[in-house]
Amino acid sequence: MIEIHPLPGIPEVRAGDDLAGMIVGAIERAGLSPAPGDILVVTHKVVSKAEGAVRHLHGDEEAAYRALAEAEAAGILRRRGGLVIAITRHGFVCANAGVDRSNAEPGTAVLLPRDPDRSAHTLRLGIRRSTGIDLPVVITDTFGRAWRRGLVDVAIGISGLDPILDLRGTRDDQGRELRVTEVAVADEIAAAADLALGKASRCPAALVRGLALPSGEGRAVDLVRPAGDDMFR
Amino acid sequence: MIEIHPLPGIPEVRAGDDLAGMIVGAIERAGLSPAPGDILVVTHKVVSKAEGAVRHLHGDEEAAYRALAEAEAAGILRRRGGLVIAITRHGFVCANAGVDRSNAEPGTAVLLPRDPDRSAHTLRLGIRRSTGIDLPVVITDTFGRAWRRGLVDVAIGISGLDPILDLRGTRDDQGRELRVTEVAVADEIAAAADLALGKASRCPAALVRGLALPSGEGRAVDLVRPAGDDMFR
Repeated sequence: MIEIHPLPGIPEVRAGDDLAGMIVGAIERAGLSPAPGDILVVTHKVVSKAEGAVRHLHGDEEAAYRALAEAEAAGILRRRGGLVIAITRHGFVCANAGVDRSNAEPGTAVLLPRDPDRSAHTLRLGIRRSTGIDLPVVITDTFGRAWRRGLVDVAIGISGLDPILDLRGTRDDQGRELRVTEVAVADEIAAAADLALGKASRCPAALVRGLALPSGEGRAVDLVRPAGDDMFR
Repeated sequence: MIEIHPLPGIPEVRAGDDLAGMIVGAIERAGLSPAPGDILVVTHKVVSKAEGAVRHLHGDEEAAYRALAEAEAAGILRRRGGLVIAITRHGFVCANAGVDRSNAEPGTAVLLPRDPDRSAHTLRLGIRRSTGIDLPVVITDTFGRAWRRGLVDVAIGISGLDPILDLRGTRDDQGRELRVTEVAVADEIAAAADLALGKASRCPAALVRGLALPSGEGRAVDLVRPAGDDMFR
C-alpha cells in the first residue's frame, strides 16, 4: 500500500525562511516520523518564496505580468490570446514560463526556482541535518498538457531518486521483454501528491510512503525531452 | 491521508470473463471492504481482454502489428521510424493508437476498449450488482507526453466521477480567485494508482481510498482537448 499524507499548517513563507525547518515541523505536527523509503513532495511556490523568487508587478499589473513571463522564457512555442506556451530556462515547456500569481501576495508573481534540482537537494540536506533522515525530495509545479484538458502536477526538481524508472529488460507476465517502458515516476509521484494537497488549502507539502523506489541521484531536468527528439515543438 | 491499495492475484483474463467478479474477489482477498469515497482503478488491458479486443498478428508479426496500429488510428499526428503518434477513434493522442503487445499472449496485440467510458460504467454496475457498493471506476492506459520523457498512466474511461475538478471560482490563500485551475483529477488518480501497480506484476487494479471527490457522471473522452483548441496538432 502507498500512503500520501498531506502536511498542513505551514505558515506563509517569506524570503530567507528556513523551509526545511518548517517542513520538519509540519511532519512532526502530522504525527509522522519519516522512515526509509518515504518521499517528500513540496509544491514549488513555497520553495520559490523562501528563495526570494518573487517579483512585484508595478503599474499595469496585467502588462507587468505578461512582460515578466516573456522575460522568464528562454523560448516561445505558441501564443494564443494572453496565453504563452514557453520554454523555461530549465527546458520545461509550460504556460507563461511558470510565472504565477495564484497564492502570491497581491501585486506580486512567483517565478520558478532558478535551479529546482538544486533547491530539492538543499531541502533534502537541511532535513537530514536536523533530523538525521535522508528523505528524497520532489518539487512540483502544475502544468498543462498537449492534447488533454486540465492540469496535472509534475516534477520540476528532485533529489535522492531517479526521475525515470527504467523497466526495459524486465519481463511482462508473458515473459516478453518490456521494450519501451520508461515510467516517469517522479511525475507520477507529483500527480499523486497533488490529490492530497488540493489547490487553496495552505498545504504545500505531502509525505509519500510505501513506494520502495531504488534510490538515485537523478535530476528533474532529465525529464525534459531533448529538442531534437521532440516531435511537438 | 490517501491510500492506494494494489489488488493482486487477478488471473489471466480471457474474452467473456466476468471481470467485475474477478475484481471483487481481489478486493476481498486484499482484506478490503469498499467504502463510500473509494475509487477503483483498472488498467485497460484486462478490460480489453475481457471484451475480446485482442487481435492475432499473422505472418510477419512486426508488419502485422504496424498494420493493426494504422487500422486502429483515426488520424496520424507524427511518424518517426517505427513510431506512429496517432489519434484514436476516441480522440486520444498516443503511440500506435494504443495497440500494445506487452502483457499480451505471444503473437497477439491488445487494442483499446471500443468505448472505455462505457466499459467503466459496465464494470461499476457489475460491482454494484454483486456487492451493493457503488464504486467509481477509472480505466487507465500508459501514454507518452509531448516535451517530457517517460510514460505516465492516464484515464481513458471513467464512471461515477468527473474527469476534471473545476476550481475556478474558489479562492487561493490570498483571497485571489483561482482563474484557470482545472485539475485533471482522473489523470492524477491514474498516475497515482500506477505507482502501486508496477508494470509486470500481474496486478491490474488498485483501490484508491480517501479522496473525498464530489461524485459525477463525466466521461474520460471529455479529457480530450478539442482539436480547434489544441495548439499542438
